[in-house]
Formats: sequence, C-alpha cells, structure tokens
Amino acid sequence: MEDKGKKISSAVIRRLPRYYRYLGELIESGIERISSKELSIRMKVTASQIRQDLNNFGGFGQQGYGYNVKYLYDEIGKILGLDKTHNMVIIGAGNMGQALVKSGDFAKRGFIIKGIFDNNKELIGNTVGNLKISDVSGVSEFIKDNNIEIVVLTLSKEHAKDVAQLVVKAGVHAIWNFAHTDLNLSDDVIVENVHLSESLMRLSYTIANNENM
Amino acid sequence: MEDKGKKISSAVIRRLPRYYRYLGELIESGIERISSKELSIRMKVTASQIRQDLNNFGGFGQQGYGYNVKYLYDEIGKILGLDKTHNMVIIGAGNMGQALVKSGDFAKRGFIIKGIFDNNKELIGNTVGNLKISDVSGVSEFIKDNNIEIVVLTLSKEHAKDVAQLVVKAGVHAIWNFAHTDLNLSDDVIVENVHLSESLMRLSYTIANNENM
Repeated sequence: MEDKGKKISSAVIRRLPRYYRYLGELIESGIERISSKELSIRMKVTASQIRQDLNNFGGFGQQGYGYNVKYLYDEIGKILGLDKTHNMVIIGAGNMGQALVKSGDFAKRGFIIKGIFDNNKELIGNTVGNLKISDVSGVSEFIKDNNIEIVVLTLSKEHAKDVAQLVVKAGVHAIWNFAHTDLNLSDDVIVENVHLSESLMRLSYTIANNENM
Repeated sequence: MEDKGKKISSAVIRRLPRYYRYLGELIESGIERISSKELSIRMKVTASQIRQDLNNFGGFGQQGYGYNVKYLYDEIGKILGLDKTHNMVIIGAGNMGQALVKSGDFAKRGFIIKGIFDNNKELIGNTVGNLKISDVSGVSEFIKDNNIEIVVLTLSKEHAKDVAQLVVKAGVHAIWNFAHTDLNLSDDVIVENVHLSESLMRLSYTIANNENM
C-alpha cells in the first residue's frame, strides 16, 4: 500500500478528465507549454491544486518551464486508460441507446460500441448506425466472444438490476449506467452513473431557491 | 444570511435527488413510513448522514415513528422545485437533442420541452416527437415569448459558448450543458454539466488501474 500502489483520491480522479479536456484544447490552439498559473486561470482552480493533483502522477512540470502540454496530455491519457481501446455493448435500444450508437464521439476516444441489444421484438433486427439490434438473450455469449469490457445500460430501471447481474456473471466489471436506479453490485464491479433527471433536478433546485432568477 | 437564508451545502443538494428517487421507489412499493436506519441500509449511507441532511430542511422525522414517506417525498419535491413546471428549449437537434425530446421522462417531472433549435438548414423544419426543429436565429424571441427557464445545449463545443451567451442575454439563468466544454458564464447563471465522455473516462481509468479486472 506504499508508493507504487498509492491510492489516488477519487476527487483527483474525477478531475483528471477535465485536465485532459483542457490540455486537448491547448493542443488544438497550438500551445506547447503552460505554467500551472496560466492553466489555473483557464480552469478556474488554484495553481496549487493543479500542482498537487498532477504530483499524484509523478508531477510532469519543470520549475521555470511549466508543463509540456502534449506530454502531459499523453500521460494523463495513459493514466485514464485512453491509450487502449475498450469494447462496449449497449443494452437498451431506446432513444438514448440509439443516440449513443449514432454519436461518433466515443469511438474517437477508443470506446468502440460492438453491439446493441434489446428485448423488444419490434426493435430486434433494426439497424442503428452500422449495427443491428440483437436479442438481449444472446448478450452473455457476445460479451465473452468479443472481449467486452464495458456495458452501457440504457434501459428501464425495472430491468436494469437483473441485466446488470447477468452481464457481471458474463465477466464484465465496468458498467455505464443510464438507468434511473442504483445497481448494488459487488465491490469489484465499478459503476459510473449518468442520472439525467437528477442533474435536471439540481438545476430546478437552484431556480427554485435563487430569488435573483 | 441567517436562519431562513441558511446556505445549504452543495453536497447536500447533490444528494437530494437521490433521496427523492428512493422515496419514490418506497411509495411505489407501498411503504408508508421508514426510519432513518432502514433508509440508510437501502441507500448505503449512514443513518446519521440521513438525519443531518434532512435536518437542513427542518427535519421531517419524528422520534420513534421515522419518516412519513409520502410527506417527505412531497417536501423534497418542493425543495427541488418539482412542484412547478419548468419550460425548456433544446439547442442542437443532433442525436442527443432528439433523444431528449423523444424521452417522456422529463415531462413527467414537470420539465416541458417547448422547442428544439438548430442552425443546420437540413434539419430545420423536420419533426422530432411532436416538435418541429426551428432555426436557432429565432431562439431569443422564443425564450422571451414562452417563459423559458432552462436551455439545454446539445451542440458542438465550437458553438456552445456563443449560444450560451446569446440565451443568457435573452434572460435565461439555467443551462443544462451537454457540450464538451465549460461555458464560463457570469455567476448568476447556473450551469449543470453532463460531460458524457468524462464519465466514460472515469470508467476506463478504473479499468486501467484495477488489476483484478
């Protein structure tokens, strides 16, 4: 539990994709190096937080030079596992599932959607993007045969828990959950929740409680 | 800034929609009252956190009785502004924008999508759900005429910042931002970000850094 195995706080991890995004934008603007101070102004966090966060990964900055943008971008990309591709399947071919298939954004970052599944006979066989919607009854076999690492759940909360258990049994340890429920899986399965209505409720809370609005 | 105007921490606010969801599920299961202990087991947070959180709102529990589920659900709903309807428009009629229009989930909670806009001439005039895609050039007028409180940005990051400034000028103070960029608006505008690729990166981080997987 020392040094190499050092546990990085989940707060830092949550911030890493944002660093990655800003560094990507700097690259697009042709900026090759940046000080923690300049980066802090752009990102609206303190320079000391930036230094602390990046120190977790050995600290890529150099006194008086700042950070080499491309190097830092690539290193954070590796830390985030973006130097490899990840195969995914989507379960639930409703509006959200179809939108995710049609979006090219994920493939660009190495997240490859290999299949889309549903239990609705009227949807099975239809084409979405360049995929055919398959019967969810075959998903376990598909996961094993196609080295699937991530399952995306875009189905109703009524089915989400059962399907989650099914895919975990098939060997999946990472779930991107759009269903409006908690999955309560074992600790070796990681779940990243996208609860859209809860996000919207936080907006309406602020509207309701802000007299200036 | 005392008592009534008591500032509730953003951590508590972030948790409120989850309470609301659990209480809704309890109602669906016919459960009328619940102790903080029972609720804590279901929600996997400590009973003391539940009591602390709910005390922020005057504490709806009663010693020896627990919480009246329906009452607590309604009260939290009011706090979250869900006792009123909120008019929204969507800017960006791509896959995600169209998926949001077609989903009925938001309307059920009082978030009414009044219009969908784009700048793509090939999309303008097309029908999505029961809305026609309008030219984004008319969005400011539409916002003023239709009492729009929330703008949903489902457009590319290149356009997001400009469009955000435009709608703020038209009087909007709440933005639900799906564009993969920070908007940097003035402090009286609240932005709730849904950065899907960042959510996915946190999954891939865990895959990359977990040897058991």
